[in-house]
Amino acid sequence: MSETFWKSSLSSVEENKILIRGYRVQDLMERCSFGDMVYLTFKGELPKGREGAVLEMIFISSTDHSFLAPSIDATRFAASGGTPLQASVAAGVIALGEHHGGAIEQSAKLLQESVPAGRGAAEIVKGYKERKQRIPGMGHPIHSKDPRTLKLVSTVREWNMVGPHLTLAEAIAAELKQPLNIDGSIAGIISDMGIPWQYGKAFFIIPRVVGLSAHAVEETTRERPFRVVRREDISYDGPPERDMP
Amino acid sequence: MSETFWKSSLSSVEENKILIRGYRVQDLMERCSFGDMVYLTFKGELPKGREGAVLEMIFISSTDHSFLAPSIDATRFAASGGTPLQASVAAGVIALGEHHGGAIEQSAKLLQESVPAGRGAAEIVKGYKERKQRIPGMGHPIHSKDPRTLKLVSTVREWNMVGPHLTLAEAIAAELKQPLNIDGSIAGIISDMGIPWQYGKAFFIIPRVVGLSAHAVEETTRERPFRVVRREDISYDGPPERDMP
Amino acid sequence: MSETFWKSSLSSVEENKILIRGYRVQDLMERCSFGDMVYLTFKGELPKGREGAVLEMIFISSTDHSFLAPSIDATRFAASGGTPLQASVAAGVIALGEHHGGAIEQSAKLLQESVPAGRGAAEIVKGYKERKQRIPGMGHPIHSKDPRTLKLVSTVREWNMVGPHLTLAEAIAAELKQPLNIDGSIAGIISDMGIPWQYGKAFFIIPRVVGLSAHAVEETTRERPFRVVRREDISYDGPPERDMP
Amino acid sequence: MSETFWKSSLSSVEENKILIRGYRVQDLMERCSFGDMVYLTFKGELPKGREGAVLEMIFISSTDHSFLAPSIDATRFAASGGTPLQASVAAGVIALGEHHGGAIEQSAKLLQESVPAGRGAAEIVKGYKERKQRIPGMGHPIHSKDPRTLKLVSTVREWNMVGPHLTLAEAIAAELKQPLNIDGSIAGIISDMGIPWQYGKAFFIIPRVVGLSAHAVEETTRERPFRVVRREDISYDGPPERDMP
Repeated sequence: MSETFWKSSLSSVEENKILIRGYRVQDLMERCSFGDMVYLTFKGELPKGREGAVLEMIFISSTDHSFLAPSIDATRFAASGGTPLQASVAAGVIALGEHHGGAIEQSAKLLQESVPAGRGAAEIVKGYKERKQRIPGMGHPIHSKDPRTLKLVSTVREWNMVGPHLTLAEAIAAELKQPLNIDGSIAGIISDMGIPWQYGKAFFIIPRVVGLSAHAVEETTRERPFRVVRREDISYDGPPERDMP
Repeated sequence: MSETFWKSSLSSVEENKILIRGYRVQDLMERCSFGDMVYLTFKGELPKGREGAVLEMIFISSTDHSFLAPSIDATRFAASGGTPLQASVAAGVIALGEHHGGAIEQSAKLLQESVPAGRGAAEIVKGYKERKQRIPGMGHPIHSKDPRTLKLVSTVREWNMVGPHLTLAEAIAAELKQPLNIDGSIAGIISDMGIPWQYGKAFFIIPRVVGLSAHAVEETTRERPFRVVRREDISYDGPPERDMP
Repeated sequence: MSETFWKSSLSSVEENKILIRGYRVQDLMERCSFGDMVYLTFKGELPKGREGAVLEMIFISSTDHSFLAPSIDATRFAASGGTPLQASVAAGVIALGEHHGGAIEQSAKLLQESVPAGRGAAEIVKGYKERKQRIPGMGHPIHSKDPRTLKLVSTVREWNMVGPHLTLAEAIAAELKQPLNIDGSIAGIISDMGIPWQYGKAFFIIPRVVGLSAHAVEETTRERPFRVVRREDISYDGPPERDMP
Repeated sequence: MSETFWKSSLSSVEENKILIRGYRVQDLMERCSFGDMVYLTFKGELPKGREGAVLEMIFISSTDHSFLAPSIDATRFAASGGTPLQASVAAGVIALGEHHGGAIEQSAKLLQESVPAGRGAAEIVKGYKERKQRIPGMGHPIHSKDPRTLKLVSTVREWNMVGPHLTLAEAIAAELKQPLNIDGSIAGIISDMGIPWQYGKAFFIIPRVVGLSAHAVEETTRERPFRVVRREDISYDGPPERDMP
């Protein structure tokens, strides 16, 4: 028999019945937290321990970072152009690239490849140094002792949920003498939960749309339309005014 | 003194200190649910009752709807073109327009304008009928008894959280002899919480990025790149092949 | 017979044959300008006069406007987050909303509804003033004598291509004692060509992706990743730091 | 002196004066084609020969490809959700990733690195085969003799504009016994013009927004809102309906 055009293992919908990974949506609404729901969606099974609570903690850590995040600024400019909420939020989501949350994916990939291969922190650090590359998930331009990372790591330690991936991430940070940052700590934790690295950026996208939505509404309801940059903040270093040949 | 270029009441960031609506992020991580966090972000104050739990229930209701949602399909096509996760998700978020989740905003606006003005269901229905417009938040193309709506409304009723906006939404549905749909019930509930209608679409964007992320990963990891529509699904009704004049 | 899922009058593709509005793409490549091609795509027929040249002139007018355009800034921030070119450009395209190029659509709609109804400038201006609305396509925050508008309008006048829509737009500007702006002049010209107002924003999207692409490449190749706003440009007016209840 | 926050060599704007790469916009409008304008924007100087005409030919080749392109389908679904034109177009632009137009960038990078290094076709093909990678810009799933490529390559040959990059691209194709595709031929041509490979995708984005705009308008004006996929086109291969533990 020929294949259908669309195929998914994630959900199914019939009249008056919505199943997510086989569970009825109304049952999930009654008995899950949002963190549990994300775990179920990405892993295919409900968590057996406090994973859902940890995920909620991750999400609470990353909703907003004031204007010190390109995603927030991109959404503000898009909203000021007069676009509907979802499109302004999408402009900010686009900005969550390799340098802005992307380290969760990169770090999770590194950890998920290194742990089964038995590669330790010293070997990993040596390899990156030889290739003159930055190890993802380490250091922060603003926060030397990031309160988000400290809370997250101390909680999973207290709850006995530290596994080999977070352990390796911490060892790499110690080897580098840099603090583990929020991306690296999230990467270690979701890897210990068995979530594939391909989902890494999602753990930043999900909370950040909360902040992006609020910034878009604030821009639209408190500011004048069409945000104009100040002239003194602009310089031009191209050719001077000239006639066409 | 001159105004700064950027201004916000939502959050502030200094070295090793992140405040959301004045609260330290690590305190919120320790003591809030994700639902509480969204309530705080949008309203400016922490919930006093079970509002956070209701918001989590709303979010769990709307993460995914299989391919029967343009947002999911848009993300699938974008992902198949070979784009990173956040950009594929953004393509789906863009699709959450006036006909696709937009009814939350429209319905919340209607309810928030009608309740203080004392307009009742009969008057509202009469007005829409005269203008030959559809009332947002009523009826569903697939679900005659939507399990999401039933669970949501029965829970807020059980928890004594029904206020004048949800009451009005239900009265409109009764007047129309159509079921209140998921958009209309969310609109009534967030309006009773005092959340401005401008945030309406956010209650669909926040959960839907969970499903969009999972569909993007599934497309990328299970399917061939560059999803090609079947020829027999396409028809062309423009001019036949012709020579240039 | 049942309908196919997809239907279009725009183009058809078979093995080694691509037709746009019935014409073979290789014939169009040989004998059209890009302006002719856009006209054909939107109208369904090739231009009979200099319409293609006028459209190219419109496109050349609107590729870039330095940082004094929210679209450019949104793309710059998205690119600095580390996203691929097409996604950074998309973030800027999203910003082309009601207040940023959207006036082409609004103005074209006004002109295309007013001309057949025989409504003149005085009546239109009176109506907008009574409703306290701004007429789209008039005035500019920076340019009192916009060189783009002057060149565009003088050219179509010289080429005898002024029709009733541009005439009405100019009459409205005269009535208001404001200059016709670039949006309003484009709206008048494409309306005189018989292009439906629904295409209005496309005349800004098409050229602007040129500038957005160049700004994205410049950001990526000349600037440091993760563009960080200066602290002194930010102010916070939310609640002061506080303990949780 | 401190640096300004924004810096660009692309354009400058003052009251009533817009300069692109130093030239007054009204002069460019009078004397350039759109192709010349793109060349100027990306290269910094006006073309001395027929480069602008070749770029227009490239743009005409790639405006649309019916539904057999994920970008078109993504825009159609986004438009059906009820989003404004620019946001629907942006959803399609996002889809122009590594597998969908991205080969222009990849192929241009390969050619621009190989030509100065003196690497020939045989060596390049050998390297890719050893690494089991596909060489970008070669072969097409639908077109064995792509009319776009044939016209483009024959024109630059006729106009004596073939340089070492297109020559190398053709040699690689001959070595592989696969046809050079539209991406590879564009890559060769823009590389021979000296345009950096980082701009590669722009040569697909610029024309494709024409087709995306037309498809968005057609979806909005001819189709019912909220495009719903047929049930028989969907299959679900996740867990069967189950009770929560």
